Amino acid sequence: MKTRNTVSTPSPKSKQSLEQVSELTTNRLSIYLRCLNELEASGARTISSQALAEQFDLNAAQIRKDLAYFGEFGVRGVGYYVRDLKRHLRQILGLDRRLGVCIIGAGNLGLALADYPGFVQEGFEILALFDNQTSKIGQRSRGGTPIYDILDLRKHARRDNISIAVLAVPTSAAQLVVDLVVDAGIKAVLNFSPGALKVPDGVKVKSVDLTVSLESLSFYLARGEIVRA
Amino acid sequence: MKTRNTVSTPSPKSKQSLEQVSELTTNRLSIYLRCLNELEASGARTISSQALAEQFDLNAAQIRKDLAYFGEFGVRGVGYYVRDLKRHLRQILGLDRRLGVCIIGAGNLGLALADYPGFVQEGFEILALFDNQTSKIGQRSRGGTPIYDILDLRKHARRDNISIAVLAVPTSAAQLVVDLVVDAGIKAVLNFSPGALKVPDGVKVKSVDLTVSLESLSFYLARGEIVRA
Repeated sequence: MKTRNTVSTPSPKSKQSLEQVSELTTNRLSIYLRCLNELEASGARTISSQALAEQFDLNAAQIRKDLAYFGEFGVRGVGYYVRDLKRHLRQILGLDRRLGVCIIGAGNLGLALADYPGFVQEGFEILALFDNQTSKIGQRSRGGTPIYDILDLRKHARRDNISIAVLAVPTSAAQLVVDLVVDAGIKAVLNFSPGALKVPDGVKVKSVDLTVSLESLSFYLARGEIVRA
Repeated sequence: MKTRNTVSTPSPKSKQSLEQVSELTTNRLSIYLRCLNELEASGARTISSQALAEQFDLNAAQIRKDLAYFGEFGVRGVGYYVRDLKRHLRQILGLDRRLGVCIIGAGNLGLALADYPGFVQEGFEILALFDNQTSKIGQRSRGGTPIYDILDLRKHARRDNISIAVLAVPTSAAQLVVDLVVDAGIKAVLNFSPGALKVPDGVKVKSVDLTVSLESLSFYLARGEIVRA
């Protein structure tokens, strides 16, 4: 699955410090961090860009280029120190602090996301679910995240300092809901509903399209690299 | 959200025709296809790589390079014909045929994926859910996908010609389940459970990590491109 930015980034000329840091780059940094987590868990202390690339099906030149943009992290003859590089990447990605997240929509997807184990590991705090169905309001996800009334979004967003809203609502409701999110002062939105959303300048929307990963598998099936027995 | 391949691709030397087509490339092709879908829906007939890049926050040189690898699709002075390029991309990605998909795990995530509107649009057929809880077996997702006994996976996989299995099970069950999937003759796996899976050569696993998209938003928040009001 791949994400892309659908709306309302500043025009390229106003990007300045970000001009060379594309969405694809930040996605890759995040993937490197996932790989380093696995390496650290397996006890590795150092890794070369070449070994990192081979082990995780990445591109060594790309790794070096991506990292070089943010500083000199490699050590000649050693490669990268796993723990150091991990710490640097977490700093670059802004993960060295608490980030409050809420999920809008307490349906199957919203409830699944609320209890997704990967989020907590990287310091994201899933603070609340929001829904408009009275039967859901006051309940909790299996993992214990409370479900609040969507009408109280602004109150909770300010009180709990929510930075990111995850949209897990039907496509037909998505624009209405993102308007409420913007109105609540939340500036970063992860959108799981297909279709583009309109938001004002200064609000960042990332859309997650789960189809992309299936299509990549389709590509390999079509190429005959893998075939059904 | 970004995916990566965790296990068991052939060694680089055996890749041959695929050697220059990385996972990242197929992900990008898939994103181009999403963009072309939006463009077509909005009535556009042609688009230049530059305009495509600007409109969807992509890289024009990268687009030209990615597409050039598969043939000459651009027309001087015109750019790309949206419908033609869409058709070519669908061919390259193997989407010009039916692909049967099953989902293992009829929990919140599995049920959400079964009814995910994007899959059907690109020709994926979600044929079945599988679970091991007797209370779920025999039920259907809201969209009508039947839930079968995981013990009948092999039977259904062969009868319905299922090409892709989507794993939406707890991490603790993932390896056991992927063994059943492999045993059923399915060669392509989309894995939503964190952690690596061991599969034999010839089986392709793509792991979806939902954390990656949140981290990209974190990056933008950290850089102050977007700030809380």
